[in-house]
Amino acid sequence: MKKSLGPRTIPFPAPVWVVGSYDAAGRPNMMTASWVGICCSRPPCIAVSLRQGRYSHANLVARGAFTVSVPSREHVKVVDYWGIVSGRDEDKLARSGLTTARSALVDAPYVAAFPAVMECRVLHTLELGSHTQFVGEILDVKVDEALLGSDGQPDFDRLALFVYADEYRAVGGIVAQAFSIGKEI
Amino acid sequence: MKKSLGPRTIPFPAPVWVVGSYDAAGRPNMMTASWVGICCSRPPCIAVSLRQGRYSHANLVARGAFTVSVPSREHVKVVDYWGIVSGRDEDKLARSGLTTARSALVDAPYVAAFPAVMECRVLHTLELGSHTQFVGEILDVKVDEALLGSDGQPDFDRLALFVYADEYRAVGGIVAQAFSIGKEI
Repeated sequence: MKKSLGPRTIPFPAPVWVVGSYDAAGRPNMMTASWVGICCSRPPCIAVSLRQGRYSHANLVARGAFTVSVPSREHVKVVDYWGIVSGRDEDKLARSGLTTARSALVDAPYVAAFPAVMECRVLHTLELGSHTQFVGEILDVKVDEALLGSDGQPDFDRLALFVYADEYRAVGGIVAQAFSIGKEI
Repeated sequence: MKKSLGPRTIPFPAPVWVVGSYDAAGRPNMMTASWVGICCSRPPCIAVSLRQGRYSHANLVARGAFTVSVPSREHVKVVDYWGIVSGRDEDKLARSGLTTARSALVDAPYVAAFPAVMECRVLHTLELGSHTQFVGEILDVKVDEALLGSDGQPDFDRLALFVYADEYRAVGGIVAQAFSIGKEI
């Protein structure tokens, strides 16, 4: 028997990604976002939704570009911090002890120490209510070489990702092979 | 050192959700989608991207409604099957052995046996290339009563979710408390 919980958002689960941008003074800002997702294969696109009041929001509008840095579990504390505090109030990079790299493809920075990054230019902006959705074309994906398998693809055991499901939870062991186990039906 | 993997999509990770709709004859169809995500808090909204050729695509356009059923790990085989095969070619429900319930709020069915469902009406449609993104307002979230904790909220240990990260991987143990551990910085 299902119980109604009302009209609301529940992360079943949601990614935990870090949106990187430059502010008007050219300072890098990093903001954690979970209302995000891949939204197209060709061209490869990603959607990130930001509240209108967020410091990063104006940066994406002004620069037409952003990055999405993908953290490992070892970075969970700083990632949570970057979701709680605004770049308007604190130098979030300095307090994190992490450094950024400038994308060679788009006008945005990314977190050098994180295992992966997607570099994006803004294609569409959609006003939804509390949030603006920015759809970015993924111009490149970069992954730490040490985290690639012998096939040249990301090794998700070593990436050690986590997701948001009320708490932060580990992306764990393999349940089944995708586009494979269903053929048994 | 990061290595460029080119302009592409990589699920770092992506949800594995099932989009439910009725076809022109009123038959329920279920399609697995991973290019999805929450995209707004007020009103609560979810985005699902479907390829233009998919059977479900025309259903969402015609009905202006869909559901998102959230599966547990025990359903991984049928969920993969629903991603591989088209409702145009097979009666996916009959072969799955699962039944659907009719939403009382929107013109769409959901999977009765799955632990949770979001019932949505289409607010926006965005053509992106290979995929159309449908943004739906979440009119209600329903969760199996047996999977709610003593606080009335979903118990993510018992929900036993999984995500897509090349393979299907379990949403595992707690890494840290969200909106909490970052305060230590």
